[in-house]
Amino acid sequence: MDSMKKELYETVKKVKDASCKMVLLDTHIKNTILLAMSKALVKNTVLILKANKKDVALSMKKGRTPAIIDRLMLNEKRIKDMAKCLKEIALLKDPVGIIEQSSTTENGLFIGKMKVPIGVVGIIYEARPNVTSDCVGLCIKSGNAIVLRGGSESINSNIAIFDILNDAGLKAGLPKDSIYLLTNTDRKAVDIILSMTGLIDVIIPRGGESLIKEVVKKAKVPVIKHYKGVCHVYVDEDADLNMANNIVFNAKVQRPGVCNAMETLLVHEHVAARFLPGIVKLLKDAGVEIRGDKVTKRIAKGVVAAKESDWPKEYLDLILSVRVVKDIEQAIEHIKKYGSNHSDAIVTDNYENGLRFIKEVDSACVYINASTRFTDGNQFGKGAEMGISTDKLHARGPMGVEELTTYKYVIFGNGQVRV
Amino acid sequence: MDSMKKELYETVKKVKDASCKMVLLDTHIKNTILLAMSKALVKNTVLILKANKKDVALSMKKGRTPAIIDRLMLNEKRIKDMAKCLKEIALLKDPVGIIEQSSTTENGLFIGKMKVPIGVVGIIYEARPNVTSDCVGLCIKSGNAIVLRGGSESINSNIAIFDILNDAGLKAGLPKDSIYLLTNTDRKAVDIILSMTGLIDVIIPRGGESLIKEVVKKAKVPVIKHYKGVCHVYVDEDADLNMANNIVFNAKVQRPGVCNAMETLLVHEHVAARFLPGIVKLLKDAGVEIRGDKVTKRIAKGVVAAKESDWPKEYLDLILSVRVVKDIEQAIEHIKKYGSNHSDAIVTDNYENGLRFIKEVDSACVYINASTRFTDGNQFGKGAEMGISTDKLHARGPMGVEELTTYKYVIFGNGQVRV
Repeated sequence: MDSMKKELYETVKKVKDASCKMVLLDTHIKNTILLAMSKALVKNTVLILKANKKDVALSMKKGRTPAIIDRLMLNEKRIKDMAKCLKEIALLKDPVGIIEQSSTTENGLFIGKMKVPIGVVGIIYEARPNVTSDCVGLCIKSGNAIVLRGGSESINSNIAIFDILNDAGLKAGLPKDSIYLLTNTDRKAVDIILSMTGLIDVIIPRGGESLIKEVVKKAKVPVIKHYKGVCHVYVDEDADLNMANNIVFNAKVQRPGVCNAMETLLVHEHVAARFLPGIVKLLKDAGVEIRGDKVTKRIAKGVVAAKESDWPKEYLDLILSVRVVKDIEQAIEHIKKYGSNHSDAIVTDNYENGLRFIKEVDSACVYINASTRFTDGNQFGKGAEMGISTDKLHARGPMGVEELTTYKYVIFGNGQVRV
Repeated sequence: MDSMKKELYETVKKVKDASCKMVLLDTHIKNTILLAMSKALVKNTVLILKANKKDVALSMKKGRTPAIIDRLMLNEKRIKDMAKCLKEIALLKDPVGIIEQSSTTENGLFIGKMKVPIGVVGIIYEARPNVTSDCVGLCIKSGNAIVLRGGSESINSNIAIFDILNDAGLKAGLPKDSIYLLTNTDRKAVDIILSMTGLIDVIIPRGGESLIKEVVKKAKVPVIKHYKGVCHVYVDEDADLNMANNIVFNAKVQRPGVCNAMETLLVHEHVAARFLPGIVKLLKDAGVEIRGDKVTKRIAKGVVAAKESDWPKEYLDLILSVRVVKDIEQAIEHIKKYGSNHSDAIVTDNYENGLRFIKEVDSACVYINASTRFTDGNQFGKGAEMGISTDKLHARGPMGVEELTTYKYVIFGNGQVRV
């Protein structure tokens, strides 16, 4: 452990030093690096697929679930998508150096908040190899150095991708040691990373709830958390029920295993009888198990009784809890009580209710008349995402380039002293 | 402990509930509340001074240092200043509800980041009673509920001020329970507050290093830290030496006991012989002890030798460490190595060097040609400050109304679903 610790500290010290060079990179150099990396990924598709095959074979041998195998597996299209993300990140505006909220004080001091990189960002993630290139891309664009720690299942894929990115990057002007993949799959290595205050400025864990909880428990470095998504859609009495039908179906069925999928449907009692029978049938036909409150059970066919433990549950599966509420107030109360401050939507044509939902629901992403499934860095126009924060400080929702910056006050004077 | 815990949880639950009402307050109501509080403070001056006398007498009896007594003591002018701060906060722009970085996606979703209050802010502070009204004012303007825990030395003053503010606030439309002063001076009460995840959204400790370290160690709630200020002034070879003289003198002598006072002076070797003898004499005449490196000792009179342990030291006193550096690079390296990322200044007429200092010095406040003493919420036009963050996430430097907000994504659609 002690020699591992010493080695890791020495390595990450180099990353920290490199981060000082990253701050100074011009936008066009960062973009050149990103485009070179993008090209290199496509060019080395065969190499990446070869490494990925090893990971997949090993996971199959270990009897991993099809869901994990699917997340792990790469193909030509997925590699092209990774390359496309890097290109999209290159096209984004560079926030570094932008001065906001500037003012001149009475004594003539010009004071502004200048956006600057955070410094060294640590990311701890699970099976998906595309996270490697997404996060490298976002950190480079935002001028941060990065320490990556992927899951052991995808170690061969990650090494292949990382080496290709690093080689292409260095040739295009990326400072040495500014991106670093931790290849030591020992869990103790993660514990060491989590204690590196002064070297790593923030840790972003991406993965299941148990991973996040472990990281939060052990971390001495600040953590931006990505907890569960218990997302709601509330169908208001003034909803366009056709639109509600589409949104509810999409939010539940289009990809049920992800954090921005809907877990609970809330329906105003005035439209429940008209709305519920149809949508319940539609969802059941798509294989969704419906767990409803008493009113729902009475109105719609084939509904099992929801228990109290259903309301705060993140199913990540084709299961939906349904509750009929007497008004928007009860809907908002339900979301406050059981939600996870991730993504919640109202379907309504009522102006007042829409604004009220926006104001009172305290979630990272609040929607009017759209599916919660859009909570995603790429969908939000950020190219990719480092994670989706359910914290309230620093960043909420999808974290992209902008959210990987902090600020410093810059003060320009001409000799002012305090009296 | 358990009954104390239960009681505190019940109380802070009420504050949390009140925070949901704070979010919805209109700007003009918040301003009415602030102005009513401001008036009430002045009107009840006699009452506050009476309570303050008790605190002062008790602290004198306990043999507290004159510095603590000075911080604790109120007079008519200080109460007027507190009232003035509240008025200034009322005049500030209300950030809540402002939508930034908005865009419309290809499929027609309007997405923006809306500034919203953080929720419930906890503040733990030491002797100064003005912190009570400053923080209440900042939290009300930013739509946050607040839990205050002042030092036991100022408990009578704090209770008097708090009751006056709360009475005036309630009459003017402040939601009940939205501001709360913890009057239990038991240290265990602080430990309970620090563990209230889900109820308190952020804790801001204000005080000496030991208080901050204890809070950080125990807190389960996110903390925004205000560590020490080891502030530097670097006098460049292209500095206007007259200006440098004024800035250096001001940064050290005007109020040495505060975190934004200069602790280390760095001087370019090309101007050291011209600059140092004069400023060292000036400072020594003002009672400053000078601890210099070898070159400084050789050039100026009455300099004692600086030890390695001097460079990272926050003296908070009339002591200054001085080092002669060979160029701006060495100055920046010194600040990186020994600084505390608080406030650092360069004095220069050289454009390139000024920009380089701004870019490369990673501190909350970076100055060109002005005294570091301006790092202060009121000086920065924020009315007052909740603290001065030396953290890198969420907020850096003086925290005012703006920094007491976070954001949520608001997404306006017309039926969009993800494909």
